[in-house]
Amino acid sequence: MSTSTSSKAVIAIHGGAGTILRSAMNSDQEKAYHDALSEILSAGQAILAAGGSALDAVAKAVSMLEDCPLFNAGKGAVYTHAGTHELDAAIMDGATLGAGAVANVAHVRNPILAARAVMEHSEHILLVGAGAEEFVAQHGAELVQPEYFHTEARHAQWLRARKQEGMLLLDHDAASQAAAAEIAPIDPDNKFGTVGAVALDLHGNLAAATSTGGITNKRVGRVGDSPLIGAGCYANNRSAAISATGTGEAFMRTVAAYDISARMEYAGQSLQDAAQHVVMDLLPRYQGRGGLIAIDGEGNVALPFNTEGMYRGYARVGAPVVTAIYK
Amino acid sequence: MSTSTSSKAVIAIHGGAGTILRSAMNSDQEKAYHDALSEILSAGQAILAAGGSALDAVAKAVSMLEDCPLFNAGKGAVYTHAGTHELDAAIMDGATLGAGAVANVAHVRNPILAARAVMEHSEHILLVGAGAEEFVAQHGAELVQPEYFHTEARHAQWLRARKQEGMLLLDHDAASQAAAAEIAPIDPDNKFGTVGAVALDLHGNLAAATSTGGITNKRVGRVGDSPLIGAGCYANNRSAAISATGTGEAFMRTVAAYDISARMEYAGQSLQDAAQHVVMDLLPRYQGRGGLIAIDGEGNVALPFNTEGMYRGYARVGAPVVTAIYK
Repeated sequence: MSTSTSSKAVIAIHGGAGTILRSAMNSDQEKAYHDALSEILSAGQAILAAGGSALDAVAKAVSMLEDCPLFNAGKGAVYTHAGTHELDAAIMDGATLGAGAVANVAHVRNPILAARAVMEHSEHILLVGAGAEEFVAQHGAELVQPEYFHTEARHAQWLRARKQEGMLLLDHDAASQAAAAEIAPIDPDNKFGTVGAVALDLHGNLAAATSTGGITNKRVGRVGDSPLIGAGCYANNRSAAISATGTGEAFMRTVAAYDISARMEYAGQSLQDAAQHVVMDLLPRYQGRGGLIAIDGEGNVALPFNTEGMYRGYARVGAPVVTAIYK
Repeated sequence: MSTSTSSKAVIAIHGGAGTILRSAMNSDQEKAYHDALSEILSAGQAILAAGGSALDAVAKAVSMLEDCPLFNAGKGAVYTHAGTHELDAAIMDGATLGAGAVANVAHVRNPILAARAVMEHSEHILLVGAGAEEFVAQHGAELVQPEYFHTEARHAQWLRARKQEGMLLLDHDAASQAAAAEIAPIDPDNKFGTVGAVALDLHGNLAAATSTGGITNKRVGRVGDSPLIGAGCYANNRSAAISATGTGEAFMRTVAAYDISARMEYAGQSLQDAAQHVVMDLLPRYQGRGGLIAIDGEGNVALPFNTEGMYRGYARVGAPVVTAIYK
């Protein structure tokens, strides 16, 4: 492998975007997020440095984000209106356009690994609900009882949301300033959801992965952009790997992740220009708040968001890990 | 309204694409399909002629396709591996990019009307399973017992598929010539699924709608391209309205419906060129077999398919209805 090729290998991750206010976070909280992002990026970076695939790197990073209770995916996922958890995830291989996804699963410890099982062991891309759980269990996915996903912070957040009669509290963005003010001091990350990773490996292949618990107090059965190929997750060696986070429906209507790829492939836009346009111009037209992470085949990295903050970072092979929270 | 504008108003529909062989159809069967397509197109045409919206026209046309047992959607939907029915549908308004969809519903008579209820009465786009049924029932969707969807032909087709051990019989395309030969004489449309409609109204607005029973003997929980915005259904006044049918996973990986829109908007391709390229060049690279119907803002109509046939037709306001089955 040439040095120039190896220097392009890179992984980026996000842990959600939204009204992340510096004023509502103390230094211990900030450190916890930076430490978690850094540890996860290091694990992905090590896989890439050893010649591992982008697919392995993003699957590992997202499974660690799922296992970390700080983020709204896997352990630490938000509660639905019914007090349950419904998890969604997708993974895509930019070399083959192979993809797998699960939605509306309630007993899968790591939805991203289940999505990968769908990609690798079925002729399908998207499996939902009990049928998805049955299939992935046959292919080694670890099933857990719903109590596994419980965290005190998410449960308290749900109870407060239930109190706000008729109000759907977006996990990404406060539905009102009043609600934000009430909850933020106790649960600073209440308004954010979705985790994701994108990577370019030493072999020049791209991959993307996205996983989420959805939005607090969401209607049972709601599926957002995260598990939908082209909306919240997309990878194609011809263009880029993208993982999104934000108000899912806006990303679905605009087919946001694939739109970045199409702008690059058909309009000749750079990764930076395409990602910037989608996040700062297109999504806001449809009340879309959030951000995304994207890497192209040259190892360029774009991490745009139109909210106050996004938990994010990237790590190039052979270079220090970079993490950030605010603008 | 000017005459030139009104002459552009048009609706197109499809009733599935696949190995529709002239040799396997008798004249009575052909007539039944032509009559059904013609009646449904006439209903949509009448809505457009009266100044109704493209959204109303496609919803009406697809609900009639769902009610017709000849087609794999609503009444006449195929059976899953478990002997149940799981229905998916999506609708999109090209004027606003508003969209609604349901997946994996088992008790909704007209999934397309349920999808419209999601679009009009929720802040979400996609609801799945029991949560979807509960929501749409609250908004007037007619619920039925699973027996409603039963047809002798689909049930017999499922029993034969079950016999072919380990074999997933694509409703769109025979998994093997042998299976096709066995089943075709009894159930000539066994390999085809999905219905859809696209329209341009007198006001210049586009809309698209897609509905399906999926694939015979499919794994419980499998969701294909039909209910996914950008994959099997998409509408945008800036480009086109598209409804797809075929091997769903290929349409999902290529984000086929939105890809046509992106080629038009970013690469300046005509509707004909974009639709032709996606169906005849892009999809086959990923084993994608099927077709789609598309209308642009000028009233151009494209009905490409890469299979032996596609049940299809279109009707311009003030002109005779056109229907076709084979190449």
